[in-house]
Amino acid sequence: MDATDFLNDFSAMSAFGATPDGGVDREALTEADVAQRRWFAGRLAEHGYRVEYDAVGNQFGLLESVPGAPYVLVGSHMDSQPTAGRFDGAYGVLAAFHAVTRTAQALRDTDADAPLNLGVVNWFNEEGSRFAPSMMGSSVYTGLMPAERALDTTDRHGVSVRDALTAAGFDGSGEAPRAAAYAEIHVEQGRELENAGSTIGVVTATWAAHKFRVVVHGEQAHSGATLMGDRHDALLGASMLVVAAREIADARPGVVHTAVGQLDVYPNSPVVVASRVTLLLDIRSADVDAARDAAADLAARIQRIEEVARVRIESTETHAWGINAFGENGANLTRAASEARGLPHQDVLTVAGHDSVNMKEIVPTVMIFVPSVEGISHNTQEFTRDEDLVAGVDVLTDVVGELARGRLTSSDI
Amino acid sequence: MDATDFLNDFSAMSAFGATPDGGVDREALTEADVAQRRWFAGRLAEHGYRVEYDAVGNQFGLLESVPGAPYVLVGSHMDSQPTAGRFDGAYGVLAAFHAVTRTAQALRDTDADAPLNLGVVNWFNEEGSRFAPSMMGSSVYTGLMPAERALDTTDRHGVSVRDALTAAGFDGSGEAPRAAAYAEIHVEQGRELENAGSTIGVVTATWAAHKFRVVVHGEQAHSGATLMGDRHDALLGASMLVVAAREIADARPGVVHTAVGQLDVYPNSPVVVASRVTLLLDIRSADVDAARDAAADLAARIQRIEEVARVRIESTETHAWGINAFGENGANLTRAASEARGLPHQDVLTVAGHDSVNMKEIVPTVMIFVPSVEGISHNTQEFTRDEDLVAGVDVLTDVVGELARGRLTSSDI
Repeated sequence: MDATDFLNDFSAMSAFGATPDGGVDREALTEADVAQRRWFAGRLAEHGYRVEYDAVGNQFGLLESVPGAPYVLVGSHMDSQPTAGRFDGAYGVLAAFHAVTRTAQALRDTDADAPLNLGVVNWFNEEGSRFAPSMMGSSVYTGLMPAERALDTTDRHGVSVRDALTAAGFDGSGEAPRAAAYAEIHVEQGRELENAGSTIGVVTATWAAHKFRVVVHGEQAHSGATLMGDRHDALLGASMLVVAAREIADARPGVVHTAVGQLDVYPNSPVVVASRVTLLLDIRSADVDAARDAAADLAARIQRIEEVARVRIESTETHAWGINAFGENGANLTRAASEARGLPHQDVLTVAGHDSVNMKEIVPTVMIFVPSVEGISHNTQEFTRDEDLVAGVDVLTDVVGELARGRLTSSDI
Repeated sequence: MDATDFLNDFSAMSAFGATPDGGVDREALTEADVAQRRWFAGRLAEHGYRVEYDAVGNQFGLLESVPGAPYVLVGSHMDSQPTAGRFDGAYGVLAAFHAVTRTAQALRDTDADAPLNLGVVNWFNEEGSRFAPSMMGSSVYTGLMPAERALDTTDRHGVSVRDALTAAGFDGSGEAPRAAAYAEIHVEQGRELENAGSTIGVVTATWAAHKFRVVVHGEQAHSGATLMGDRHDALLGASMLVVAAREIADARPGVVHTAVGQLDVYPNSPVVVASRVTLLLDIRSADVDAARDAAADLAARIQRIEEVARVRIESTETHAWGINAFGENGANLTRAASEARGLPHQDVLTVAGHDSVNMKEIVPTVMIFVPSVEGISHNTQEFTRDEDLVAGVDVLTDVVGELARGRLTSSDI
């Protein structure tokens, strides 16, 4: 399997849920996601993999050469946001398939005495747009979320993960394979590599993050007849909060990112002042202190908005993490492979979450980036050049080869 | 039928779709609305009315004493916002039933030679929360909207008005009765009557209004990884617009009302910067010039928001009207009835739209208000005192008696 095979496979893969403008629409377990998973199961089977599903629909392709030994798992996710780029996640799963297949062949060719098995994984529902929260499959695999809670999660139409998995035939009952190490490659979704002219990003840590679920409580009223001074408008309070979130980032330029991507209004009628708005707000930074300071700023601004808009605001921090490092010995494998191949590389942090962020809590984990043109992401215009895609598969193959030889141990977590 | 009968009927009626806190949830053609319509058809039939439905489900109760003559129609609407008060609309339909029944009896008792027939109407979908726009039934009746467009309208789940009417058995095929005059009574949904101590509001005109559909266009991006300076956040632009709408009202205290009650975000995912937000914004005033000035202010602010938030904003004025008067001779009927009964009354404008606003374009129309405690409306805590409800039915009965005698003609439109 060479670079041409990879690019052909990537082209075939990008047809599932393709949008007219070059992107994809493949939310978890929609028709396009299901069709793509079936296609991928076929590709795995053609190359001698045993295809298995665990209780939450994580899709594994397994090459068991050392009976009973744990696996070097390599993968990412194939689901997407509703209208998204074709590289996010999908590239990593396909790269894993090619890297593992090549590594297995190389080990056979050299009669190497590898102590571990090799496997590819397509994690279920990394995006979380249809079934919240994100990174669901890897969260269950790593024990961060009970499987039952994932299975009971419903989408907007009340369809549960359990029913959607059963309908698609991905409701595996088998044990998930035990991992000894994990590797993942992904497009950067930022501009650092492109700006610096690097082909490979050695991911050394995640940004710090504070994530909030905010409920703004007002009072229903007639949106025409009610005197302005009598209103308790939840949408006004929520809107002031969206603007405040941007101001918090603007006050810390280049240091803090903030966002509100999801906001729901109740009763959302043209003639009713909203009584309740629910929104998700997050603060991220590569600087733990700046992230903490921004969170304190948010709390102070919420108090002022409660007074000015005459609403009540409940804010719950749903997740928070500091700068979260990937193991240094894993990063060294990526640096060595890049240097051996003469590929310019640099250390980068990841702002976005990835399944690898879950995996690195339980096994030695290597995370690799390739450049995103102009940093465009979660957008149909997301793009990575063929030569960068191919270089990434090469580096990943080298890293998987090292992992298969047991180069990292539990002390590298 | 006396005051006790009315209050008993109102109590029975308020049980349909009752919420635990004293309000109702009876969106158009939901189970509660359908059950209430069937109950009302039964009450009409018990009192000798012929019950008919036109092509868009307007429910008529007809007493035809002069074959072929047009009708004095009296009514309002029984549908409600998702969580609303039990008086809005429902009071007016029940008051119409009692006023018409009493008037018919009085005409028989006195052998009066009334030239017109009498009818009660429960207009379909006045609220417009399930099927937009509002005032749908009276818009079709008065020729403002083609029946086919109303029937093709779908709710959020794709259910059409046509299918919902057929399922409920309200898809009448008959001709709607021809009206010669119209009267409607409604709770004020404001505080003027209560503040002045008046029992009866003589509605002389509607406020001027400008209504806009606004679409804010941004670009999808990863809400964590994308640099703040690279974002084109549609939700930020929309939020700035919601805040601007409030500022426009605050700059014209007591003169201009503004509102955004409905706002929808796409793709509305926690990790995606929104590419599109659609919202409905309206500006209302009793002063035509102030309303026009506020609309110009909005246009200027939209330009500034486009620059600051780096989004594109499409704003379409979907409706606009000036101060729109009800006929003075109709208002005089209400004044005379209030004085005869010793009830304090005053002239008021209506800020909210009503079916009478459609009807007054085609026939002489009388609109009457009774007080709303604290002006609370579109809220389960909406309240009007029993004595005010009963006084309103009395005045409406007197007005209907005059209309039945042909006191208003087409020159009173």
